[in-house]
Amino acid sequence: MTLKIYLSGEIHTDWREQIITGAAGLDVVFDGPVTDHAASDDCGVAIMGAEDKKFWHDNKGANLNAIRTRHGLQNADIVVVRFGDKYKQWNAAFDAGYAAALGKSLIVMHGPEHQHPLKEVDAAALAVVEEPQQVVDILAYVLNGTLPEKGAGL
Amino acid sequence: MTLKIYLSGEIHTDWREQIITGAAGLDVVFDGPVTDHAASDDCGVAIMGAEDKKFWHDNKGANLNAIRTRHGLQNADIVVVRFGDKYKQWNAAFDAGYAAALGKSLIVMHGPEHQHPLKEVDAAALAVVEEPQQVVDILAYVLNGTLPEKGAGL
Amino acid sequence: MTLKIYLSGEIHTDWREQIITGAAGLDVVFDGPVTDHAASDDCGVAIMGAEDKKFWHDNKGANLNAIRTRHGLQNADIVVVRFGDKYKQWNAAFDAGYAAALGKSLIVMHGPEHQHPLKEVDAAALAVVEEPQQVVDILAYVLNGTLPEKGAGL
Amino acid sequence: MTLKIYLSGEIHTDWREQIITGAAGLDVVFDGPVTDHAASDDCGVAIMGAEDKKFWHDNKGANLNAIRTRHGLQNADIVVVRFGDKYKQWNAAFDAGYAAALGKSLIVMHGPEHQHPLKEVDAAALAVVEEPQQVVDILAYVLNGTLPEKGAGL
Amino acid sequence: MTLKIYLSGEIHTDWREQIITGAAGLDVVFDGPVTDHAASDDCGVAIMGAEDKKFWHDNKGANLNAIRTRHGLQNADIVVVRFGDKYKQWNAAFDAGYAAALGKSLIVMHGPEHQHPLKEVDAAALAVVEEPQQVVDILAYVLNGTLPEKGAGL
Amino acid sequence: MTLKIYLSGEIHTDWREQIITGAAGLDVVFDGPVTDHAASDDCGVAIMGAEDKKFWHDNKGANLNAIRTRHGLQNADIVVVRFGDKYKQWNAAFDAGYAAALGKSLIVMHGPEHQHPLKEVDAAALAVVEEPQQVVDILAYVLNGTLPEKGAGL
Amino acid sequence: MTLKIYLSGEIHTDWREQIITGAAGLDVVFDGPVTDHAASDDCGVAIMGAEDKKFWHDNKGANLNAIRTRHGLQNADIVVVRFGDKYKQWNAAFDAGYAAALGKSLIVMHGPEHQHPLKEVDAAALAVVEEPQQVVDILAYVLNGTLPEKGAGL
Amino acid sequence: MTLKIYLSGEIHTDWREQIITGAAGLDVVFDGPVTDHAASDDCGVAIMGAEDKKFWHDNKGANLNAIRTRHGLQNADIVVVRFGDKYKQWNAAFDAGYAAALGKSLIVMHGPEHQHPLKEVDAAALAVVEEPQQVVDILAYVLNGTLPEKGAGL
Repeated sequence: MTLKIYLSGEIHTDWREQIITGAAGLDVVFDGPVTDHAASDDCGVAIMGAEDKKFWHDNKGANLNAIRTRHGLQNADIVVVRFGDKYKQWNAAFDAGYAAALGKSLIVMHGPEHQHPLKEVDAAALAVVEEPQQVVDILAYVLNGTLPEKGAGL
Repeated sequence: MTLKIYLSGEIHTDWREQIITGAAGLDVVFDGPVTDHAASDDCGVAIMGAEDKKFWHDNKGANLNAIRTRHGLQNADIVVVRFGDKYKQWNAAFDAGYAAALGKSLIVMHGPEHQHPLKEVDAAALAVVEEPQQVVDILAYVLNGTLPEKGAGL
Repeated sequence: MTLKIYLSGEIHTDWREQIITGAAGLDVVFDGPVTDHAASDDCGVAIMGAEDKKFWHDNKGANLNAIRTRHGLQNADIVVVRFGDKYKQWNAAFDAGYAAALGKSLIVMHGPEHQHPLKEVDAAALAVVEEPQQVVDILAYVLNGTLPEKGAGL
Repeated sequence: MTLKIYLSGEIHTDWREQIITGAAGLDVVFDGPVTDHAASDDCGVAIMGAEDKKFWHDNKGANLNAIRTRHGLQNADIVVVRFGDKYKQWNAAFDAGYAAALGKSLIVMHGPEHQHPLKEVDAAALAVVEEPQQVVDILAYVLNGTLPEKGAGL
Repeated sequence: MTLKIYLSGEIHTDWREQIITGAAGLDVVFDGPVTDHAASDDCGVAIMGAEDKKFWHDNKGANLNAIRTRHGLQNADIVVVRFGDKYKQWNAAFDAGYAAALGKSLIVMHGPEHQHPLKEVDAAALAVVEEPQQVVDILAYVLNGTLPEKGAGL
Repeated sequence: MTLKIYLSGEIHTDWREQIITGAAGLDVVFDGPVTDHAASDDCGVAIMGAEDKKFWHDNKGANLNAIRTRHGLQNADIVVVRFGDKYKQWNAAFDAGYAAALGKSLIVMHGPEHQHPLKEVDAAALAVVEEPQQVVDILAYVLNGTLPEKGAGL
Repeated sequence: MTLKIYLSGEIHTDWREQIITGAAGLDVVFDGPVTDHAASDDCGVAIMGAEDKKFWHDNKGANLNAIRTRHGLQNADIVVVRFGDKYKQWNAAFDAGYAAALGKSLIVMHGPEHQHPLKEVDAAALAVVEEPQQVVDILAYVLNGTLPEKGAGL
Repeated sequence: MTLKIYLSGEIHTDWREQIITGAAGLDVVFDGPVTDHAASDDCGVAIMGAEDKKFWHDNKGANLNAIRTRHGLQNADIVVVRFGDKYKQWNAAFDAGYAAALGKSLIVMHGPEHQHPLKEVDAAALAVVEEPQQVVDILAYVLNGTLPEKGAGL
């Protein structure tokens, strides 16, 4: 059993790398959006030509990015969505809704300060965590049935 | 042809009433979430018993609300999602993603200040507007083929 | 908005009647299995001829009952499954799994003594309650946004 | 043709091992739930933190286990569900209903004492057996068209 | 609950009329193919022009008839397929397979002489009967939970 | 049985009116695109504001029109697509492909001069006709089993 | 591109072997039912115990065979169904209907004497042929775009 | 992540080769229709026998080609549709509609002279380009997040 994991959301910290490194040795493959912020913003006009209006500049880029993100979400077994401290992060919530409608197993990661505004997103999830290591622990348990040596609640 | 419209998102202004009033005479039916903020927050514990932790208090309520919102989203022909000025509004973006994954016709409403952070949501929409009257105009056009007398761009 | 409710599970108490009576005035329609235990057990052989073996006697009846129960589950917006005090009630859990796989909104009703063995079923539900009145309260809230006057947790 | 088999249900006897051993040489891959009872019960709190209430302790664990079981059920060609002698085993019946709604080929295994209460589950199955060897025989027949040397009914 | 019943198969006896008459008073609506044999054979060329080859003459007609039969099968809750004494009746078996793949509740009607060659079709059915009255009895039971006064097997 | 018919394609002749008039008395409801060419081209900018570039002017309008056409195609039982003498009519072929992928019953109408370039579209259809009256004849046959008095091929 | 081909229908001639031999070198994989007639008839009772009634003897076997045939049909890209000279062959027509409802590419093979009674089945097919070599030619064309050297109609 | 790309549409220039060559080194697999025009037109009669009428000659061929094109469209992650300068190209627009209904990521390629008549097709696309190199650039970006060195709009 190979699990396909899509890592959606915040792109300004190294949480993806922490999960990928932590999951070394597990039978998982990871996918996610383009995390180069500048490339992600400008890909549309860079390939298909400049736009005067910011709306269409963004529209062209967002549609290109959607080719990758939709593919990743649709092919994933588990979708992890992280909400960070900054920015509106509406695309993260959008991905969570998209994954929920497809019936994907959803794991949401965020700090306690975002608990209340994320309550609908959390309620759609099978797990709500705060740290990358907890995602690694979940993947290890789902795949192998093993729990971390010093479990938080035992 | 009766169109079923789900009005998702911001609950602190009267945009829903403006659309519903404006659409009087059109063959449409409207649905939306419970917009009584206090009831929406507390419904779970009010019916199923109190919780010590805020997380489970919110979880119980969000799951109850999901009975209504999932039903509304799944049965809609058109989903209108409005992003207002305040709060995180992640549930609005979540609904937009949910609607997009179901292949619903999506109309997004927001002010120009939110254009960039909403670019992925806008790109999934068939129309992006700023005012309730524009939603009414779209419904009138989709149903009857009629345009507002003084169209903005003719 | 009319909600279609399927009432699955225990057939030896009047919980269905309590819900139906309590929901008078709400825009709901109810469906459920044949609750005449003898007819439910013998319908197959009564219509299609006797069987020597109990297995085929039961098989004929269970398949006839499946015509009704599958129809009810597939057409429901909300599936309520009640686990009572007696019997194995595996068909109640089967219906719950069937409803979950179809993405139906699931409400599970049972006493606290069954909490642990029902944890997987409960985890698939949007609400877990003990009393018929709580189902009525949920329906009233989902439809009209109103909460019971003396909510348990406010 | 590789068949993917999900082995659901009872976790207190070695029926899974008997099937897996018996099927050595057949083109099958097996999957199933975590069968370490303690880990399965406590995985949620071990990874995501303790809960005061047993309900949420169980809820956290059941949702984590659902990541694995839903994946297994959704990806299986054949779902085998065994009902043992002990416990309520409602999750086994839940899995059977879930598999039936997905249109999976269902094989149910149980002793004759459970025949009547399992009649709805059995009626949804393509085969009802009592022993692990019969599952192995079915897999061998489905894959290779070969029957056991001394068939029970020839 | 209104049940939609599609009556497929043999068109040379009055079995459809027997069922429809017998079901007077039940909350059912019936659909079925065009049963005017000549019209059914020639509809294609009558509307779209003659063909020299019998194959295309038949192809045009069969495709027109498919507009009706696919609609009926796709919209039915229950599909009844009757195999009569004469002809190849491959379209009846085709409809049964089509209904099975759509997950419809399938009732098969035929005499005992066809039992062995129809075993695959029967195995996909929830009920196998010989007489129209038995279909009526099934519908009455599924809708109202009532059994015929002198049940065959009680 | 009410059939829902979507009339797609050419908007410069009165073929829709001929079908609708001819089908008076049949249990059918018709839907189709906005056929006011100017409104259809300009609806986007009229409601949502002018664009400098023709591409975005058209894009806004085409997306608004898609709200209506997707709804019509998805809800239709039968999709009739007419190819006229003028223009590229790529949207007609697009609608035909869209309908085919949804498994809709497709009727294609065009003159003999377009037979070869439309061969892939025709092959996906259940009927290929030249005149509106033939569509009326098909609807009458599908609904009532009646054929035109002087059939072309009898 | 590897094409998965399911070979359904007649089991008394070597048509499957002719196709498989002829397709050597093409990127195809073949699947089909168990073609050992005795094993196919008796598999159910051989594994799960004897039955007194022929109906249940056959039912047990047909359900076991359905595990294989449903899997094969659901996973195929192309379903070839051959109707031979003998027997009722209702399971062949059932498989054709099942494949059609799943949207599979259907190729039907039969002699000209069966043309009229198979007209509905043929109309659901993308190709109707008489000889195994024609199936091989179709596979070669679909995969490689190559036609037989002396095409019948050029 | 391997992306499956289906290249639909115009067959008279070497745009497919340009994309395939340009994409050397990317993790993509390409599929497309048979591009030998004569074989594509005559495949049906070459394998299944001559027809007197051009309509059936074409119908036989178009249905054979549909085996390949439907498979390709259904299995693709991204569908690229190119409209060239000549011919009606209705099959290209048909493929675009088919892909859109399946929810595929659609890239449309055409010159500026076709912008207006293709507005509905373009509106369904995630990218509209003019040159094969732009498709290559999109694939490189979607897979690797890299943009062309001299982007057109930066």
